[in-house]
Amino acid sequence: MMMFPVAVIYSVLINYFTVALDNGLARTPPMGWMSWERFRCFTDCEAEPDNCISAKLLMQMADQMVDGGYLDAGYEYLAVDDCWMSPQRNSSDGRLMADPLRFPGGMKPVIDYIHSKGLKIGLYGDVGSKTCQGYPGNEFYIPLDAETYASWGVDMLKIDCCYASHSVEGIEVMGFFLNKTGRPFLYVCCSCANPQGTYTPGANTCNTVRSYMDVQDSWENVYQIISFYGNKTEEFIDSAGPGHWHDADMLVVGDYGLSLNQQKIQMGMWALFASPLFMSVDLRDIDNKSKKILLNKEVIAISQDPLGIQGRRMFKYPVRQGNVEGWLRPLSPAGTYAVGILNSNNFGWLQYVNKTLSDFGLTHQKGYDLTEVFTGKKYGPLKPLDELILKMEPTSLFLAVAVPLS
Amino acid sequence: MMMFPVAVIYSVLINYFTVALDNGLARTPPMGWMSWERFRCFTDCEAEPDNCISAKLLMQMADQMVDGGYLDAGYEYLAVDDCWMSPQRNSSDGRLMADPLRFPGGMKPVIDYIHSKGLKIGLYGDVGSKTCQGYPGNEFYIPLDAETYASWGVDMLKIDCCYASHSVEGIEVMGFFLNKTGRPFLYVCCSCANPQGTYTPGANTCNTVRSYMDVQDSWENVYQIISFYGNKTEEFIDSAGPGHWHDADMLVVGDYGLSLNQQKIQMGMWALFASPLFMSVDLRDIDNKSKKILLNKEVIAISQDPLGIQGRRMFKYPVRQGNVEGWLRPLSPAGTYAVGILNSNNFGWLQYVNKTLSDFGLTHQKGYDLTEVFTGKKYGPLKPLDELILKMEPTSLFLAVAVPLS
Repeated sequence: MMMFPVAVIYSVLINYFTVALDNGLARTPPMGWMSWERFRCFTDCEAEPDNCISAKLLMQMADQMVDGGYLDAGYEYLAVDDCWMSPQRNSSDGRLMADPLRFPGGMKPVIDYIHSKGLKIGLYGDVGSKTCQGYPGNEFYIPLDAETYASWGVDMLKIDCCYASHSVEGIEVMGFFLNKTGRPFLYVCCSCANPQGTYTPGANTCNTVRSYMDVQDSWENVYQIISFYGNKTEEFIDSAGPGHWHDADMLVVGDYGLSLNQQKIQMGMWALFASPLFMSVDLRDIDNKSKKILLNKEVIAISQDPLGIQGRRMFKYPVRQGNVEGWLRPLSPAGTYAVGILNSNNFGWLQYVNKTLSDFGLTHQKGYDLTEVFTGKKYGPLKPLDELILKMEPTSLFLAVAVPLS
Repeated sequence: MMMFPVAVIYSVLINYFTVALDNGLARTPPMGWMSWERFRCFTDCEAEPDNCISAKLLMQMADQMVDGGYLDAGYEYLAVDDCWMSPQRNSSDGRLMADPLRFPGGMKPVIDYIHSKGLKIGLYGDVGSKTCQGYPGNEFYIPLDAETYASWGVDMLKIDCCYASHSVEGIEVMGFFLNKTGRPFLYVCCSCANPQGTYTPGANTCNTVRSYMDVQDSWENVYQIISFYGNKTEEFIDSAGPGHWHDADMLVVGDYGLSLNQQKIQMGMWALFASPLFMSVDLRDIDNKSKKILLNKEVIAISQDPLGIQGRRMFKYPVRQGNVEGWLRPLSPAGTYAVGILNSNNFGWLQYVNKTLSDFGLTHQKGYDLTEVFTGKKYGPLKPLDELILKMEPTSLFLAVAVPLS
């Protein structure tokens, strides 16, 4: 049994492997499906055979991702979060195992199935002694576990730090050993990778780092995350880019707590944030209108723009019962922009917004053509000082691509 | 011009007309449509010809109420709130007039049209010098205005107290003169009818009194109102009953801020509260799922139960990110109850709830059959100590009618 003496070896390693993360992945924000927000750690398959964390759930979700057009739209990772593991490691070789009841053939055939559908597979680990939900942690087994993941054909690891004595170092060491396997792992880090709250980790260690609180199935919570991005972006916007992204957490589009307008807001704002887009919803039972939001090509194009520049809040002002905020994300080709106007006012009547593109810092004198991404409606041509007059529904987002005129 | 010297005459009248409100109306909580939450005071019909407060809007909404099946379901009042009036009274006789641009033929033909559809019409007034939005108030014209409303065939008056020197007295005097016309007026009072916050007005003056804050298009706000009812009900539950109801404010079902589950919660809880059910939504453009909630016969039957007993919160306990609350409303025939379990937890996984009917105070030893009103699902027979085990979605309501077994 190959135990890894973490406390001793960390100090050696941390000097040794100050090499940049160079797995070639996530040139644009990763997209996929993740079990956590919706399915959490429910493991009682007798009580909930269709909804417990199990081979069946993952394989059904894989089918849905392909048949529902999600893979074609760009959602390629199918990621199981905490609670996929057996409570004990293999007693003979110390390796992690999938829970034998919920994954009767082990993890490998499930992964093979997922791969056969053209999808990539994400697992979850924790550099502490156990995971947040009490399953075996990686702490003393990092090289072995990295090797196990690689041998199964895992494509992504979400890494957490519950019960960890050395959070950041553990994440770095795991990253090192993942790289060492030779298999490219999308490396998805929890906010514990950023314990100082500087929001500037990632480039050398993680492909994505969670920037703020866990998302919940609630507009109040989603808006708190949006406000955080608005208030704090200057502190971490520059550390986002191809290969490393700030993660605003999962999409709750299609779940139980957001109105349709609020679902569009989350999808659109996450695209402006250049955040990973991981759905956490039961794809077997999703409303068509929510599905349409998740599959919206124009929004996804903003998210996946190759320049990879995180959007910035350009202005914010209070209105009767909320705020109006202007957001801007530079897109390719140069001079093109995603322009977002978010209305969080919940006063029942329309919120009138009169803005110019110069309020967003856009100065191209010949002006721009705008296309709103949820409605397809065209605006313009608009010169920088021309007024854009919007009548916005309660809690709603106007999100347009502005193309400069020649 | 018939001016009414309010300050002098109030003291005389208040002793004179200590007669009970006896208009025979609202034996069950009134139902209808009201313009305010959704259409507010938007009066610019050039900018918004279809959505400004106008004859056209009211007549279109009347058509929808009939054609959409709302009238058949019990929604009989079509009520315009503030801003229907001309900024000035008629200079020759001092009477209120509808705005001449937005109601080109005056209010009477609009009311005739509404009556011709089988609906009743509600107008809005204010016992102050002007309405909240600055239109002419009733203050010095109460007898004249009551007579005007009656002459137009008005069926309901919503009364407010902005800019009023004598809120409660003004409301009482207006009620007196409405009664004096001989026409039955549903008398719908704003929370200013209850300035002491005792929540026990109404029986002698108003058919309905607003109990708490204005509703907005937001789950946070709706849940605040629900919590208020839970925390304060004991102070005002006994003053509800046939003819006089506590008003939790309009339904925002079908608007922009609530998820489908949250819409069901508002509809169901308002029924448990024995609150008036006034929709405030654009019926011309409502989602079918929202419409189905508003037209749900079983929920409406709870709301309209002839016993008219306001529901009571029986228990409340915190869960991970919210609360589970149990609610009970006695229905007819005796021994029948509406049983509500509200889950405000927004954690993405199901909330398990194990309760017995005895937790709701139900003791019929032969037990009960339960039918959930949104799903039609049957539970039971359940004896008082049998467990009712529910798996509840985030922010959701279980609402069932419990019928005692013989």
